[in-house]
Amino acid sequence: MRAVSLALATSLILGAAIPAHAADTRIPDQAMKTAEQLRETALEGDLGYRITESLTTEIGPRLAGSEADARAVQWAVAKFEELGYDRVWTEPVTFPKWVRRSENARVVGPNAQPLSLTALGGSPGGHVEAEVVRFADLDALEAAPAGSLDGKIAFVDYRMERARDGSGYGPGSRVRSRGPSAAIRAGAAGFLMRSAGTDSHRNPHTGITRFDEGLDPVPSAALSVPDADQLGRLLAMGKPVRVSMVLDCGWDGEATSHNVIGEITGSSKPGEVVLIGGHLDSWDLGTGAVDDAAGVGITMAAGKLIGDLPQAPARSIRVVAFANEEQGLYGGKAYAEKYADQVRAHQIAAESDFGAGRIYAISTGAPEYAQGAVRQMAEVMAPLGIEYAGDAGGPGPDISPFAARGLAWARLAQDGTDYFDLHHTPDDTLDKVDPEAVAQNVAAYSVFAYLAASAEGDFGSTPKPQE
Amino acid sequence: MRAVSLALATSLILGAAIPAHAADTRIPDQAMKTAEQLRETALEGDLGYRITESLTTEIGPRLAGSEADARAVQWAVAKFEELGYDRVWTEPVTFPKWVRRSENARVVGPNAQPLSLTALGGSPGGHVEAEVVRFADLDALEAAPAGSLDGKIAFVDYRMERARDGSGYGPGSRVRSRGPSAAIRAGAAGFLMRSAGTDSHRNPHTGITRFDEGLDPVPSAALSVPDADQLGRLLAMGKPVRVSMVLDCGWDGEATSHNVIGEITGSSKPGEVVLIGGHLDSWDLGTGAVDDAAGVGITMAAGKLIGDLPQAPARSIRVVAFANEEQGLYGGKAYAEKYADQVRAHQIAAESDFGAGRIYAISTGAPEYAQGAVRQMAEVMAPLGIEYAGDAGGPGPDISPFAARGLAWARLAQDGTDYFDLHHTPDDTLDKVDPEAVAQNVAAYSVFAYLAASAEGDFGSTPKPQE
Repeated sequence: MRAVSLALATSLILGAAIPAHAADTRIPDQAMKTAEQLRETALEGDLGYRITESLTTEIGPRLAGSEADARAVQWAVAKFEELGYDRVWTEPVTFPKWVRRSENARVVGPNAQPLSLTALGGSPGGHVEAEVVRFADLDALEAAPAGSLDGKIAFVDYRMERARDGSGYGPGSRVRSRGPSAAIRAGAAGFLMRSAGTDSHRNPHTGITRFDEGLDPVPSAALSVPDADQLGRLLAMGKPVRVSMVLDCGWDGEATSHNVIGEITGSSKPGEVVLIGGHLDSWDLGTGAVDDAAGVGITMAAGKLIGDLPQAPARSIRVVAFANEEQGLYGGKAYAEKYADQVRAHQIAAESDFGAGRIYAISTGAPEYAQGAVRQMAEVMAPLGIEYAGDAGGPGPDISPFAARGLAWARLAQDGTDYFDLHHTPDDTLDKVDPEAVAQNVAAYSVFAYLAASAEGDFGSTPKPQE
Repeated sequence: MRAVSLALATSLILGAAIPAHAADTRIPDQAMKTAEQLRETALEGDLGYRITESLTTEIGPRLAGSEADARAVQWAVAKFEELGYDRVWTEPVTFPKWVRRSENARVVGPNAQPLSLTALGGSPGGHVEAEVVRFADLDALEAAPAGSLDGKIAFVDYRMERARDGSGYGPGSRVRSRGPSAAIRAGAAGFLMRSAGTDSHRNPHTGITRFDEGLDPVPSAALSVPDADQLGRLLAMGKPVRVSMVLDCGWDGEATSHNVIGEITGSSKPGEVVLIGGHLDSWDLGTGAVDDAAGVGITMAAGKLIGDLPQAPARSIRVVAFANEEQGLYGGKAYAEKYADQVRAHQIAAESDFGAGRIYAISTGAPEYAQGAVRQMAEVMAPLGIEYAGDAGGPGPDISPFAARGLAWARLAQDGTDYFDLHHTPDDTLDKVDPEAVAQNVAAYSVFAYLAASAEGDFGSTPKPQE
């Protein structure tokens, strides 16, 4: 999972014997000292947690395009201002609006009982009552012949695996993104899946789905893990099992929300930007504490700590609270498009959108000549339990559209062991956030952003030709 | 919590030096050997878990008086018969029927957001939108002057404590039973409480409440623990917080369900009965796995293992699946009334209704002359990690009405550390039940019932004068 590039492996083997390339990116000693102080200040404070608390408590759930989402934008502007950012502004982001009104389901017949489920984002509403056909995984459903599920409900019973780096989510979320279309192609009138989650609570995991072009969407929902277990047991009894599901949800025109941006102006190269951030929207079931109020809190706090220094670093620190990540990276795409001609000005970016667990590694996609500077960052982060991890992983979701245009990215990898217990469920609430882990994250982000903004030399952002 | 009587303490100090009283109850050696075999057979099997699985899966939630409750009665009759019990019968139990149709709530105003709650059993329906007034505990609410809450919603924010023996539930459940009446006396239009639970999930804990005579009931509900946290934080911001709660629930005539009873006929004293059991009904939110399908499964399996022996013990083993425990011990009261003139015939009783955790102690309210036999039971249970605990605790809920008439009781104390994470919530589902812990319970109950049914001498059941 933690790939190390060949070039990097070579440098690891040959080590210090090779003299630094004349143009290698490097962080000055004074900046290293300041970063150590920043790290300690961050560890002693609770600002990241307090911001997370404020957003989740005062706004609550903030589904993109909802009234609460608009309040969240106002909240973010006010919070950046309260924290003393030099510049605060918003940028509009427009997207289709999806709404959830109500949802319920039950087994009907001799084993009648309610089931706990939630509509997938993007699902149409509707009432389906039909026999359920179980598939162990997505492959099995995708192999179902056309017409084989006519009028039935397809149920994909794939169990997502727990992993520190969240690697189980790939296969888990693929069921959500591709399952409904596969079900329709086989003739199904409805789609059910075991939630893409690692918990065992009656809290289903929502998340966006898409229907392939030309297909007629059907009601699509995720059962909580215990409900998927239950449906599996009922089916294992060998008699037909009928389920009635009633979803009242669907697309409802367009909405406009905003990326909210706060900037600490650089002291000598204010036009060069180090970008950190998280996303402001959340799903509607919980209060979006780990997804992603924590990311907003961590990065807003990191920027604020840098802004509080006697002297700003050379480059500007830009903190972005992205709009509507959940339904398709709309805020990240809007940002990438708006700043398409400023790839080089954006030195490097890191997004916090993987919960509120401790960071255990830093990695970047920066070129070899900049890796020494990243190792310097890792040196300052070492007391936080963070190690250098080469070019492992990739950019966070909202910076990925800009990374595809050539932006250099860093990943501050959070421990996601428990993340998918909460992700996209009603249970994503503030009590799941550990203030000490958030402080560790703030320390790491402030060190990263400050050092990237202080580095002599760049991190390799270079415009890529677009198709 | 684990009181030891003075007489017992004395015998502990003086130990074996005191000769047994001539009439002391005693278990014959052969029975001790058979009990050891029973214990091992139980530990190797999974029958208790399979019965628990069958009830929770095939029937699901079974609110007293519901269609599913009637199916559960049929299920229990069929299960006793399938397990080869010598006699199987039902006894009608009539009670007021309460129904839950829907429920929702939200904070309104500048911090608008949904709240997760559930109506307390016995609550009337209704729509209340009012300002919330918080009380730290029941005492504080009970001290509120008449009229001081006119038209408001009282919110008792008491946090229940976790304990192995469930001792935190007393103060927790008192908020539920007495809070609504206290709120009404102060003029409140609605009642909210932090769930009497120890978890941190968006799953509120229901449970029965009562309104004092002469009061006009108001909508009364429990918030999930994270929602109570959230409401507390919103109130701490210092501005008025208004909540809208809409409950559609209430009393709806009478219903008749049944105690379901299976008996293994005693070989030489069939008219003398050792009673074990659990309750068949559950709340409607979960599938009632730990409350109390496990109790039914454990005791049905224990009776079955005794029935499988080459020779039945002297006395009969009666396993009772009680009706409607949740709303007021209706099944237990009906049983006590029906058998009021057979207190002596009922030698001793133990109910399993505290989850599915391992048993760590056995205690009884039996007189001193019978404690030696209980120590003999504890000897056979020692390899199960069970110790003798004198007269600690009291009878299980459904046997308490009969115990009040003089029935001797035993308590096989289960580890309830996690019980109130699940109790009365949607999360009370089969995945929370550990098959190995259930097997340990079956071993303990089969040893207890077999030895009590084999003992020479009685356990002190004696009719008590009733008021």
